[in-house]
Amino acid sequence: MGLQNGHPLTTSLEEQGDGQSFLKEAFNVILEEVLRKGTNVQEKVCEWQDPAELSALLDLELREGGENQQQLLKRVQDVARYSVKTCHPYFFNQLFSGTDYHSLAGRFLTESLNTSQYTYEVAPVFVLMENEVLSKLRHMVGWPDGDGIFCPGGSMSNMYAMNVARYRAFPQVKVQGMWALPRLAIFTSQESHYSVCKAASFQGIGLENIFTVKVDERGCMIPEDLEDKIELARSQGSVPLLVSATSGTTIQGAFDPLDRIADICARNSLWLHVDAAWGGSVLFSSTHKHLLKGIERADSVAWNPHKMLMAGLQCSVFLMKDTTDLLKRCHCANATYLFQQDKFYDVSLDTGDKSIQCGRKVDCLKLWLMWKAVGSRGLGQRVDKAFENTRYLVGKMKTREGFQLVNEVAPIIKERMVRKGCMMVGYQPQKGRVNFFRMVIISPQITRKDLDFFLDEIERLGNDL
Amino acid sequence: MGLQNGHPLTTSLEEQGDGQSFLKEAFNVILEEVLRKGTNVQEKVCEWQDPAELSALLDLELREGGENQQQLLKRVQDVARYSVKTCHPYFFNQLFSGTDYHSLAGRFLTESLNTSQYTYEVAPVFVLMENEVLSKLRHMVGWPDGDGIFCPGGSMSNMYAMNVARYRAFPQVKVQGMWALPRLAIFTSQESHYSVCKAASFQGIGLENIFTVKVDERGCMIPEDLEDKIELARSQGSVPLLVSATSGTTIQGAFDPLDRIADICARNSLWLHVDAAWGGSVLFSSTHKHLLKGIERADSVAWNPHKMLMAGLQCSVFLMKDTTDLLKRCHCANATYLFQQDKFYDVSLDTGDKSIQCGRKVDCLKLWLMWKAVGSRGLGQRVDKAFENTRYLVGKMKTREGFQLVNEVAPIIKERMVRKGCMMVGYQPQKGRVNFFRMVIISPQITRKDLDFFLDEIERLGNDL
Repeated sequence: MGLQNGHPLTTSLEEQGDGQSFLKEAFNVILEEVLRKGTNVQEKVCEWQDPAELSALLDLELREGGENQQQLLKRVQDVARYSVKTCHPYFFNQLFSGTDYHSLAGRFLTESLNTSQYTYEVAPVFVLMENEVLSKLRHMVGWPDGDGIFCPGGSMSNMYAMNVARYRAFPQVKVQGMWALPRLAIFTSQESHYSVCKAASFQGIGLENIFTVKVDERGCMIPEDLEDKIELARSQGSVPLLVSATSGTTIQGAFDPLDRIADICARNSLWLHVDAAWGGSVLFSSTHKHLLKGIERADSVAWNPHKMLMAGLQCSVFLMKDTTDLLKRCHCANATYLFQQDKFYDVSLDTGDKSIQCGRKVDCLKLWLMWKAVGSRGLGQRVDKAFENTRYLVGKMKTREGFQLVNEVAPIIKERMVRKGCMMVGYQPQKGRVNFFRMVIISPQITRKDLDFFLDEIERLGNDL
Repeated sequence: MGLQNGHPLTTSLEEQGDGQSFLKEAFNVILEEVLRKGTNVQEKVCEWQDPAELSALLDLELREGGENQQQLLKRVQDVARYSVKTCHPYFFNQLFSGTDYHSLAGRFLTESLNTSQYTYEVAPVFVLMENEVLSKLRHMVGWPDGDGIFCPGGSMSNMYAMNVARYRAFPQVKVQGMWALPRLAIFTSQESHYSVCKAASFQGIGLENIFTVKVDERGCMIPEDLEDKIELARSQGSVPLLVSATSGTTIQGAFDPLDRIADICARNSLWLHVDAAWGGSVLFSSTHKHLLKGIERADSVAWNPHKMLMAGLQCSVFLMKDTTDLLKRCHCANATYLFQQDKFYDVSLDTGDKSIQCGRKVDCLKLWLMWKAVGSRGLGQRVDKAFENTRYLVGKMKTREGFQLVNEVAPIIKERMVRKGCMMVGYQPQKGRVNFFRMVIISPQITRKDLDFFLDEIERLGNDL
């Protein structure tokens, strides 16, 4: 009995049975506590506890001895209970929400198979599957060919873009470092995601070499100002390298005018990267994909299906138009213990040399299985439903009394909301505006009734303010 | 019925039931095909197919319409069937293997809760849990206090080290980029992991600024040569920044002499990073932890519990001795939509500004639950068992006839092994040596009988060579 108190799994076949029975019981807890209760509007979105209390409730400390199965199942239950139910219909707090059961099945399978995406040898199914998913996503962008890789989040995708753009322009950077290069300039709008800044710092380009382009009142990059900023950079002796346009900004959900930006990039020989982490999935909708018109002219795209498509964290791709093996040339290290060239299969299938990681989690299966389940058409309908729901909510808000901007009520309403556990919505200030709620609508399981609840509840929570 | 052919989930409560029933059936397939068959020595480790055949068998293409539940379950089955069983007792191919059922339960729960590790608000349990796990790991390193973060793999941890070391020495790099800095020099042994090179390229330092330190015949860094290389770098006008020592090299499993390296770093004011991705877990063993003697003198440590501890991919930490908030100062972007300072709880709990990612996968729960299950003692016994098994195998190999180095048989034996599906072991060449098998022993479920099988099977496969 390998699972007894304090005993590790030290013998072989015996505990496979014990282990599997524990897993089955844990699975039942997950079904009940996370998936059934978590998606029930009668239940709370979160069970708020102050950090010190929660820490005590969970008994987090790790000790010398082990625990028995009953204690461990109780722990599974506690983790489920006190965690936020991001699958709940009233969770509007982040750019992800809802649950897709096909994706979830794919995620369980991924975890059970526990492999790394770097070679065909240890991940034959996933290497081929990743190729298929990337190819399909590239086709949606408008590229018959190209390259790409799944990576751990949109911030990393944006870093990849900056690195391959730099390498294409100045291949000596790989060996000689930045000292061999002229000062570079990066361009992005003031509404772009903060990961562009993080990337510039991390890669040794520096924040002061990011030129911030102005946006119009909808939050879209102003192309004329981009041209001005390129001129400004040149006048300061910098070499313009890359424009990071945004399709779906984090706060307003704005789409930069890609065609006009692409014209400017073409004239100035700049790498055009589109951060479509949030908005990329709109390409599935024939009704709304015009928002990304011009994306096919980009050199690279970041796109997170874990956001609008509900593929589950993490599911994020970096796509490139390049067909010259730039991704691999830029990142290869040719490790002999993984990427032997005398293997008995086509080693161009080994993806490790494209990546800045070594071990790389399998993130393609969940998206592939969900896509197989509902088809491109089904995914498009989900996107359409999110737009419809948004239109409905905006319409209701316009006609409802009492919904005007009031100074600084958002933090107070947020605290009441979370302590009550009734729903979750994020807030933030924005240039010239006070704190306001950012309502994010993703899941097709959201009904108009849920949206009415949102309005009623905001009203109730802020009634006396 | 939302799961019917081609229909997306567009209404609400109905499909939760359908979805859950699909998940249950998929779970049963996983139990049978991956966990029961995959751990049975009578079954194959892999079901080899050439890429073109496999692609056809899997019908990977993604189409407009969706599929029904039966088709989808068949797909779950196919993915399981043709994937490598890394949990199989005869899988010795990578620095991970085996299955821990407590970890796996934690992984299923993590996937179901689908949240991001960046704020206490959306991940209250996991923010506190990450703190506890990091603190415990730091204590094992020998630090009463410090900082750290879970990140997607050891390569990323090594990148973090280089970035914080650079920022501590030259904080202006964040804003001004590398142009404001003198030429830097990094030191690591010729047996260190290739991610040190990838990091240097990615962060704009460049491969030629890595000084490769010689190793002795066991693969350990030679401290005298490190001193010589530091002098060499200085004589070329570079500023020595960081030494990346290795505890557990990728091929030989060598441990660099940390105490002597720490002396040199102290004398030269260099950042000492220890890449203990593979060997860090040896700290759990009171018998063998002397191999890492001196690690407490490091500034930072990379450690992957997904390797020797079987926590499952990905589970990787970057640990720091620093108590001055260096990690946050180096990486913060202060995004207003996530890290509002007017929140109603202690915002120092929000970890997002420590990270180079935005969304960050929850990787702590699986390790925490496994640790709760068997205790520190149990994890230590696992490590001891791996050492015991290794000693047993080496002893057997020494006494067995026919096990001497023969030119270039490894690639042929490997091909036969994989086509047969009987087991998996990696091979590689090394300076001055021909291709040889790298036998990796991790799982405590491995018995002496399994190791005898390994020897017999290698003999059978190479019999006629």
